[in-house]
Amino acid sequence: MKSFDEITQLVSIELEKINWNKQPQGLYEPIGYVLSLGGKRIRPALTLMACNLFSDDLQPAMNTALALEIFHNFTLLHDDIMDRADVRRGKPTVHKKWDDNTAILSGDVMQIESYRFIAKTPVKYLKPVLDVFSQTAAEICEGQQYDVDFEKRLEVNAEDYLEMIRLKTAVLLGCALKTGAWIGGAGEEDAQLLYDFGINIGLAFQLKDDLLDVYGDEATFGKKIGGDILCNKKTYLLIHALELANGKEASELQKWLQISDENKAHEKIKTITSLYNQLGVKSICEDKMQYFYSKAIANLEKLSVLNNKKQELRNLAEKLMFRQD
Amino acid sequence: MKSFDEITQLVSIELEKINWNKQPQGLYEPIGYVLSLGGKRIRPALTLMACNLFSDDLQPAMNTALALEIFHNFTLLHDDIMDRADVRRGKPTVHKKWDDNTAILSGDVMQIESYRFIAKTPVKYLKPVLDVFSQTAAEICEGQQYDVDFEKRLEVNAEDYLEMIRLKTAVLLGCALKTGAWIGGAGEEDAQLLYDFGINIGLAFQLKDDLLDVYGDEATFGKKIGGDILCNKKTYLLIHALELANGKEASELQKWLQISDENKAHEKIKTITSLYNQLGVKSICEDKMQYFYSKAIANLEKLSVLNNKKQELRNLAEKLMFRQD
Repeated sequence: MKSFDEITQLVSIELEKINWNKQPQGLYEPIGYVLSLGGKRIRPALTLMACNLFSDDLQPAMNTALALEIFHNFTLLHDDIMDRADVRRGKPTVHKKWDDNTAILSGDVMQIESYRFIAKTPVKYLKPVLDVFSQTAAEICEGQQYDVDFEKRLEVNAEDYLEMIRLKTAVLLGCALKTGAWIGGAGEEDAQLLYDFGINIGLAFQLKDDLLDVYGDEATFGKKIGGDILCNKKTYLLIHALELANGKEASELQKWLQISDENKAHEKIKTITSLYNQLGVKSICEDKMQYFYSKAIANLEKLSVLNNKKQELRNLAEKLMFRQD
Repeated sequence: MKSFDEITQLVSIELEKINWNKQPQGLYEPIGYVLSLGGKRIRPALTLMACNLFSDDLQPAMNTALALEIFHNFTLLHDDIMDRADVRRGKPTVHKKWDDNTAILSGDVMQIESYRFIAKTPVKYLKPVLDVFSQTAAEICEGQQYDVDFEKRLEVNAEDYLEMIRLKTAVLLGCALKTGAWIGGAGEEDAQLLYDFGINIGLAFQLKDDLLDVYGDEATFGKKIGGDILCNKKTYLLIHALELANGKEASELQKWLQISDENKAHEKIKTITSLYNQLGVKSICEDKMQYFYSKAIANLEKLSVLNNKKQELRNLAEKLMFRQD
């Protein structure tokens, strides 16, 4: 069994081997740029780790793993245009470094490139892998659309929010695990358990993100604390705060949601955070995160492979839950 | 053998059966809108016509045919954002009717949908169809990038231009014919001859487009005459005019290329058209169109199917060459 670190090392080596120095340069150079910015490489690692549960040979799953990493980075590229985000991983985003049209077109060809790597899946598994990949890709777009819709919608409940993050974040983790399991030779039941493990870890991961944005440590988080609060993002915390607040707390919350004055940013973050604390939404979010984390571990328990083989995935799940960035 | 009209009829029926009334509506509604705007449905028709050369059963090629039409319309959707085009087929473009972000994201999911239809290709042909489709899709993006690059580049020669339109327009016709031929049961040689037929027809088709923009009849062309001239588009005509003009003609051409005053639009079109006539670039373009058309017909001749079966493709090629819109 290979460790997570060994596996991400393998992924990095293979990613660096891909030649993006192709013509026309204006089309392919931004792809190389985006992929060179780094990231945790969690998705391709999950594919290879799932494969490794059933097989010692990871090579047959490598192209599928790379496809998922390329696709994931494509979604970041296009999301950054839509969100008008200027910075990603400390560097200018593609539409800032080049322009919007370059970002649109390079993203389009990046999506095609991800399908070209999917097409290199061992032929025995090509059709099911292609199908789950396309379904997942469409779901991610659906999740992004719901995310955009929610910004404009007044009422968003916790269930809507969880469905949105399931689509936007969790399904790709599920897809990564399921395809890797198949290629490793897993039966359908194990493949589905790993898919569910991915969904549950993905949901917990996103709730952790919501918590880190408010309660993280700026130095280790790598982003400014309170970003979600400043843009009134309807996170799991805010949705619950809106539901639970009454009387004075409700009017205080509503008042601060109207304020977008940059000079009051610090005060806005402080006040809303303390409202979250008073309303107990921090522990509601932590409990829900714990709930999905436990479900994920239970999915893993049921898997028909030797218990010690599951340790790497358990470690990874724990690492993602207790991370500080 | 089914006629082109019978085949486009079949395509229309199948296209209309696809349900785009899915959630989230903001994501899928623009797809239904774009596909309802019409168009000649040439690409799916070519797939089915190529299939029909080798088989009476067109149904196995239908999903592949639909994939190509969906993909083609996706490229129009994203190109219209990049070109800031407000109108397509007499109706507002998606980014005008909705907004840029909707157009980006609906386009992304439309590309995925085209792959979902490709995935329904009969499994025997899935891998080669998937590969040629992805290669073609990437080439179309490359063609679009060259098109954008050429706007900013001072020197573009005729060879560069032909390579750009081969990528941007011709390869999808080749892909449509080749995949249809395969699914109909054609051998590799026939499939390649049909691919080449598509390339040659595509090149001739685009040169015809350049000619129609200058020499077409406004009433039947459906677009304003002289659009390419007004935006200094480096068409086959302008590239040759720039190469051939000397002395007074060259300075006259350069002078008018600097003029973008809307009040002088009519005069600009008139003067540049008459320069084209003096320099003989109209016949250079017509000759080149004829050259590709003849090559296409020669590709068809070599095909190992009964001569009378080729008549529908011959008719279509002729129709595309002598069209007025």
